Amino acid sequence: MSLWFCEFQTPNLELCSRVKKALHTENTGRLELAVLDTYEFGPALVLDGAIQATSCDEFIHHEMITHVPLYTHSHPEDILVMGGGDGGSIREALKHPEVKSIQLLGADQRVVEVSKKYLPEISAGLEDPRVEILYEDGGNYFQGMKGKYDVIIVDSPKFAGLTEGTAQGEFYQSIHTALREDGLFVTPTGSPFFQQDIVQGIHGAIKATFPITRMYLAFIPTHPGGICGFILGSKEYDPLSSLAQKTPIPTRYYTCRLHRTAFVLPRFLEEMLD
Amino acid sequence: MSLWFCEFQTPNLELCSRVKKALHTENTGRLELAVLDTYEFGPALVLDGAIQATSCDEFIHHEMITHVPLYTHSHPEDILVMGGGDGGSIREALKHPEVKSIQLLGADQRVVEVSKKYLPEISAGLEDPRVEILYEDGGNYFQGMKGKYDVIIVDSPKFAGLTEGTAQGEFYQSIHTALREDGLFVTPTGSPFFQQDIVQGIHGAIKATFPITRMYLAFIPTHPGGICGFILGSKEYDPLSSLAQKTPIPTRYYTCRLHRTAFVLPRFLEEMLD
Repeated sequence: MSLWFCEFQTPNLELCSRVKKALHTENTGRLELAVLDTYEFGPALVLDGAIQATSCDEFIHHEMITHVPLYTHSHPEDILVMGGGDGGSIREALKHPEVKSIQLLGADQRVVEVSKKYLPEISAGLEDPRVEILYEDGGNYFQGMKGKYDVIIVDSPKFAGLTEGTAQGEFYQSIHTALREDGLFVTPTGSPFFQQDIVQGIHGAIKATFPITRMYLAFIPTHPGGICGFILGSKEYDPLSSLAQKTPIPTRYYTCRLHRTAFVLPRFLEEMLD
Repeated sequence: MSLWFCEFQTPNLELCSRVKKALHTENTGRLELAVLDTYEFGPALVLDGAIQATSCDEFIHHEMITHVPLYTHSHPEDILVMGGGDGGSIREALKHPEVKSIQLLGADQRVVEVSKKYLPEISAGLEDPRVEILYEDGGNYFQGMKGKYDVIIVDSPKFAGLTEGTAQGEFYQSIHTALREDGLFVTPTGSPFFQQDIVQGIHGAIKATFPITRMYLAFIPTHPGGICGFILGSKEYDPLSSLAQKTPIPTRYYTCRLHRTAFVLPRFLEEMLD
């Protein structure tokens, strides 16, 4: 049998992966959840028809969304991860010896359970005693909260600020308030090739809230166009100048040299964000 | 009608683009040649079922394969382009005022003619008086030639050294001999994600021939995995240190900052090339 999973990366562009086996499929009521064992990328977590992480390339997304902020902050002790129920960014954050606590907020319980079962190499960190999983909606979580976290990692399209207008500004303001005086956060953006209006919107809203706003890029073959853009908003530390001197940690994509150079953008993106 | 063009990027991965219209299709006897007007990327030149260039993203490939070597060399006057019949790298090379002559070798005549007709923005440079098109096979072209070119751009899978073994080493030796004493050349490699053995093979063969061998990367959405790797072999100038001070030229992807940072590789590639 020739079984293929096709994802519409845009209405006019599809990426299709040949599938060995559908390991799990389920409609949780909130989302359509699947784990597909693909020939090219190994087991892939698919939410509502979109690849979230695959065994072969998840390390890139998870390393870049985690180590860039955690190496920028000089003493990242208390971390909040929003979404990211597969646990990949938590696995990476736990490599930093400074980290004392990680709260995972707004993940879908079934995504967590299914990731633990089918993607153990990604989700292993979820069992660590420093990790607390909060199955709350996330929407009102920040109410009344002030200065609680050193680093916030927004690791889910649900929270990635893809909403526009007032809600977007309020979301980044809540994050700003929930961070300590020298806190910083990171979020993936839309596709720098296919969703430039979304990238500009997120960048503008973060820039209106944080004194330091920087975009960086990574090569991720299962993301639309093979590219992922991240935006880092920071109150004090600038990722371009303040790369903390720390013990090296094991990585496969991130290096300290790459930390700086990932912020050097192609001209069309530089001009777009001007 | 819903018309889609699907390219096997690997045997287990397909990228499919919705097509407005097939502007041209032809079997030249040597290859299957098409120009498809796609919704996402505009008109696309397709050779033997693989996208070579599209109106929307060709600037990335052509700028990065041209400006990196031409900014590395202090006085690039005589240039050879191998393959690349669409003319994109010639258009970029002509932006450098030092360039006196460009020879285009081994391009398919029909590719040149069809590109002139359907892709005028890519192929415009082919009419420039500094450009000479040689419709020869390319195989024996280098015989007896010595020290003729400052820069050689290998801009075709046909010449990209995908052959292995002795032929590959001989090809890079011919290029070495055809270059002047301070000459340099560049070639695209296989996919850093899907063809790591090919990348290693090309890198090793160039390293055995040229004292300076450097790999760099660019984001190109229609390439397999969204990434393109290039390898630069040089007799004297190191692209990491000798970035010539020149008049800025208009670009959309390349910048002088990006010139240096494109050589900073993810750890898995660094280790692979060690």
